[in-house]
Amino acid sequence: MRAVVIHAPRDLRVEEIACDDPGPGEVRVRLGAGGICGSDLHYYLHGGFGAIRLREPMVLGHEVAGTVAATGAGVTAVAQGDRITVNPSVPCGQCAYCREGLRNQCLDMRFYGSAMRFPHVQGAFREEIVIAEAQAFPVGDTVTLEEAACAEPLSVCLHAVTRAGSLTGKRVLVSGCGPIGCLTIMAARFAGAQEIIAADVVAAPLALATRIGADVAVNAGDDAGLAEYRRDKGRVDVTFECSGNPRALAAAVEVTRPQGTIVLVGLGGDVPLPMNMVVAKELQLHGTFRFDAEFAWAAELIAGRRIDVRPLVTATLPLDRAREAFDLAADRSRSMKVQLTLAG
Amino acid sequence: MRAVVIHAPRDLRVEEIACDDPGPGEVRVRLGAGGICGSDLHYYLHGGFGAIRLREPMVLGHEVAGTVAATGAGVTAVAQGDRITVNPSVPCGQCAYCREGLRNQCLDMRFYGSAMRFPHVQGAFREEIVIAEAQAFPVGDTVTLEEAACAEPLSVCLHAVTRAGSLTGKRVLVSGCGPIGCLTIMAARFAGAQEIIAADVVAAPLALATRIGADVAVNAGDDAGLAEYRRDKGRVDVTFECSGNPRALAAAVEVTRPQGTIVLVGLGGDVPLPMNMVVAKELQLHGTFRFDAEFAWAAELIAGRRIDVRPLVTATLPLDRAREAFDLAADRSRSMKVQLTLAG
Amino acid sequence: MRAVVIHAPRDLRVEEIACDDPGPGEVRVRLGAGGICGSDLHYYLHGGFGAIRLREPMVLGHEVAGTVAATGAGVTAVAQGDRITVNPSVPCGQCAYCREGLRNQCLDMRFYGSAMRFPHVQGAFREEIVIAEAQAFPVGDTVTLEEAACAEPLSVCLHAVTRAGSLTGKRVLVSGCGPIGCLTIMAARFAGAQEIIAADVVAAPLALATRIGADVAVNAGDDAGLAEYRRDKGRVDVTFECSGNPRALAAAVEVTRPQGTIVLVGLGGDVPLPMNMVVAKELQLHGTFRFDAEFAWAAELIAGRRIDVRPLVTATLPLDRAREAFDLAADRSRSMKVQLTLAG
Amino acid sequence: MRAVVIHAPRDLRVEEIACDDPGPGEVRVRLGAGGICGSDLHYYLHGGFGAIRLREPMVLGHEVAGTVAATGAGVTAVAQGDRITVNPSVPCGQCAYCREGLRNQCLDMRFYGSAMRFPHVQGAFREEIVIAEAQAFPVGDTVTLEEAACAEPLSVCLHAVTRAGSLTGKRVLVSGCGPIGCLTIMAARFAGAQEIIAADVVAAPLALATRIGADVAVNAGDDAGLAEYRRDKGRVDVTFECSGNPRALAAAVEVTRPQGTIVLVGLGGDVPLPMNMVVAKELQLHGTFRFDAEFAWAAELIAGRRIDVRPLVTATLPLDRAREAFDLAADRSRSMKVQLTLAG
Repeated sequence: MRAVVIHAPRDLRVEEIACDDPGPGEVRVRLGAGGICGSDLHYYLHGGFGAIRLREPMVLGHEVAGTVAATGAGVTAVAQGDRITVNPSVPCGQCAYCREGLRNQCLDMRFYGSAMRFPHVQGAFREEIVIAEAQAFPVGDTVTLEEAACAEPLSVCLHAVTRAGSLTGKRVLVSGCGPIGCLTIMAARFAGAQEIIAADVVAAPLALATRIGADVAVNAGDDAGLAEYRRDKGRVDVTFECSGNPRALAAAVEVTRPQGTIVLVGLGGDVPLPMNMVVAKELQLHGTFRFDAEFAWAAELIAGRRIDVRPLVTATLPLDRAREAFDLAADRSRSMKVQLTLAG
Repeated sequence: MRAVVIHAPRDLRVEEIACDDPGPGEVRVRLGAGGICGSDLHYYLHGGFGAIRLREPMVLGHEVAGTVAATGAGVTAVAQGDRITVNPSVPCGQCAYCREGLRNQCLDMRFYGSAMRFPHVQGAFREEIVIAEAQAFPVGDTVTLEEAACAEPLSVCLHAVTRAGSLTGKRVLVSGCGPIGCLTIMAARFAGAQEIIAADVVAAPLALATRIGADVAVNAGDDAGLAEYRRDKGRVDVTFECSGNPRALAAAVEVTRPQGTIVLVGLGGDVPLPMNMVVAKELQLHGTFRFDAEFAWAAELIAGRRIDVRPLVTATLPLDRAREAFDLAADRSRSMKVQLTLAG
Repeated sequence: MRAVVIHAPRDLRVEEIACDDPGPGEVRVRLGAGGICGSDLHYYLHGGFGAIRLREPMVLGHEVAGTVAATGAGVTAVAQGDRITVNPSVPCGQCAYCREGLRNQCLDMRFYGSAMRFPHVQGAFREEIVIAEAQAFPVGDTVTLEEAACAEPLSVCLHAVTRAGSLTGKRVLVSGCGPIGCLTIMAARFAGAQEIIAADVVAAPLALATRIGADVAVNAGDDAGLAEYRRDKGRVDVTFECSGNPRALAAAVEVTRPQGTIVLVGLGGDVPLPMNMVVAKELQLHGTFRFDAEFAWAAELIAGRRIDVRPLVTATLPLDRAREAFDLAADRSRSMKVQLTLAG
Repeated sequence: MRAVVIHAPRDLRVEEIACDDPGPGEVRVRLGAGGICGSDLHYYLHGGFGAIRLREPMVLGHEVAGTVAATGAGVTAVAQGDRITVNPSVPCGQCAYCREGLRNQCLDMRFYGSAMRFPHVQGAFREEIVIAEAQAFPVGDTVTLEEAACAEPLSVCLHAVTRAGSLTGKRVLVSGCGPIGCLTIMAARFAGAQEIIAADVVAAPLALATRIGADVAVNAGDDAGLAEYRRDKGRVDVTFECSGNPRALAAAVEVTRPQGTIVLVGLGGDVPLPMNMVVAKELQLHGTFRFDAEFAWAAELIAGRRIDVRPLVTATLPLDRAREAFDLAADRSRSMKVQLTLAG
């Protein structure tokens, strides 16, 4: 079967790979849709990020959904023909953090399409994949597999929202309106945010942000944009910083109220932190990383369209046009979430 | 009466100023001891810090204790002759943050010896001062006024500890062992920390740190010092960063465990934050600033010597040797907390 | 002008009372709608509840909305003709709890239509009322005054939800589906609850509960109803106990999961608590009482119909049929929220 | 070897039982000291408590310490001759709660000397016992095995303290001053409580309570005792209810401040809860049960005498006088913690 394999920066190939049979407790899934994530783009454009670099060819992809093709011995949670979304996160279950219930901090994590360990963990942009039963989350028959494939990024954003505590009654700023920013807006709306301000420097994602739930859209490049939220030491209760941009972090520190919370969602390098203001305003900065129980929530919310992710998917291309899909995904002015049709 | 007045960097004078009588609800205090704080030193050495600069002569000092000399009409909480410590913080009581109970974030705060507003709020390095009744906290007859004058910095550290949540059973790192670091060690010990690691680059404060409660002292300049705490993504539960030093923050990010807390106590400028690690480990950075209800706790704990601050006060000089006292306080190898004897 | 005055149990009269002019900072409101609350019913049926008893005639009512008829000197927040909802809660602003920001626990609270203090605080079932500017919350022109008058009970439920912490991803049980239970369902849905189970012993409110947001309706009188939620020590994350019924509390203790939360909303007398199970499962029981900042949230959410309260108001009667309205409100099989048209 | 076996109420026998060899990963411990707990007494006096009843003979005891006699293959954490305290809690590690990190809520828990499951889990009042390596916690050579055997009840109290959040600066009431109440006083003191009030109806435990850390001792049977703490809706921040007595719970509800916390430590049957006051004051009642990570903390704190448990152990009797020891432990006027010398 075919898979999307990254060999080096810009060297993305559609290649034949072998297909396994499901062992006991395993499930073979015929994959329908796969979304291109920011980390997939980093491997494609730069061969990695930070200290994490490609050292061997790797199948990309970890946002996928499909149909159960076969089940191994003892599988009871799903049956052939079930439409499911795939949790790409496989914690060890044995390390100190897993035993504490912090599985997303597992010391021996296997996460699809990641070069963090060597040999790399191969990804899921392929026609079929064998997974553990516990990774399969049924989505019913109402929604498309494209929607179902959004469960992974939505679960990232639900986890980010959980890290902020209760949002009921809160004024929320989401800075950076790519797919993660937009799904965070949806998740914050869902979690009862009173008012949501979206900030970005590009017009297209801002326009989409207001369409999917933001009350206000602000051009972060324009100094006047966030001015009114700087009054009285800052008037935003919770900021979700999804851009990883240093200027966005500085702006977040200015507009977030005393003892307010900034959830750090976007990755970045060594970013200058205005320490005096963080201290004097007693801000709380909370990192957030991936997800755990939230994957099940995301699958359910999408399956019932309590959160409707359809506006996010701006293009779907066949597997053999993967390179074109990646180039499109890299252009924020033309695309939001770009997906591949995997097994057709 | 005499007071210690800063006119410009390095231009510190002992001058005569006028003395008021207490109005209704007010108390005149004959001051015995006054501790020199890091912010006093910043005015002395640099004329201010960050955007806060001296624009007129200002009496320094906000860590003071003394004896009630006279009480105005209606004062019931204290009587002539009572030995008290003085809360130098006067929030407005009317702004949005005061109404929420966040008085240390008051939008119209008057804090002794601070150039944050203009005209500056004059400080308490003087022979006598008139304060509101609510600022007076009795300390009984057991402890010295030198000890009582430590209530203010101790309350800063108790507030920092409160910002970390429960410390019971926790491994704690305190980075930076000046007076605030050392009092944080005492406060963390008092709050039930299981193990306390002190880190600094100077030998003398490290030696004191172990004497007043740290279990382990580590030279922060030696890369091997904290090495064992970096294992498994970090093994420190809570770090109190009291130095404001960028390398100390980077080290804190490395040794603090996933979902652990770094309390930012020390002020600093734009400090590089290793964002990827903060996000991936889901660290929590909490700024802490001054205090509120903690002042009453500090006064009580010192009065009963439940926290014994005596080892901290390394020198006491008379008011007319103020300049010498400030120079001594600025030399970390020779001094920890330096105090002035105000009214003799 | 006319008002609804309770003299003794079942002795409810529509009487003439005097009308004031607004002083500085005050607003005179011509009231449109007033909702009958459980406490109004207690005064009507029993002359009070617990230790709180009627000792003089008292105007009932605290859920009201109307139109600004006149403004006193210095009022800027609202103008004549504005449609507003009235916050019936007037904390003193000076006591220890107010200063901490716990205004709903004020030691000197004045709350409309309450016999908790003597002389009683007169209520708002009247044609006009003079309030402080800070009690007036504009609701715009989209919604009816009947909807606007639901801001008070909705704010009670938003406060209850806030007391539970984040509801995102949680399975929630609401036991007791009167107006407070139903508004709690709406508030929990709004706050991101994953699944909401409604329990009651009467069919009509259960039917309404599912219409306004509950996923499952369970007859609490039928032992099998909640059976599946008792498995594995309990499978409900958060229970809102709105009935005050002892059997409902016992059921809540059974179905709420280990370390889960039961928010106690409904009042009751001495209710038997199954202590062994509370201890062994480490349940958290949190009382919730009235509201504070939540009133502003409720006004906004109703004004924008983010929470649509219309299905709740099952009858509206003119002021002179007050007694009939109270009798109707007391019959759970025939009514949910009953309102009075106050000034016509 | 000999063991203390309960056959029926008041039918306690010292009998011979078989001794095992340690398998791989196991440790054989020669037990030195064993403390009699309230649950041991319940089996002795009443044959159980609540729904938990003796259905077969059972070795009692779960508070034990001893010396490593032999180690099985692969054991690295302890060696022959090490003095250790034994964690009597063996969670399954596989159930939903274990996977969440809530091991003390394990659905398949094996806890020494408990009739909760059938066959019962045999206890540790015996000369030797084989345990898993993970149950062994070294205590060094400074403290006695009697002290080391207090690690289990101390960990119960450290867990209770953790359930209350930070105690720094708080006024704390401990109601019920048996061994658990007294250890809670020690744990609360250790965790930074500002003021601790001990309440009981018996003089002897009250006297001990003040000796080991309480600031104030109050006769709970005397209505005036707690009167001053009832002012202003209650002036105690956190109450630990360790007696399980209905009147003590009612008193706790009266003296605990608005939004304050009552930690329910003591077991009881159906206890009347003054619901109106819990709701109106928005109290938080938190159940607490056993412990998890706290066992390691307790072992360390006792080993270093940071918490000195010696005043608690009021009598130590040899194994063959077990019945006498149980009778003594049941008499609160003559004893606090009674221990058995197991292997002599």
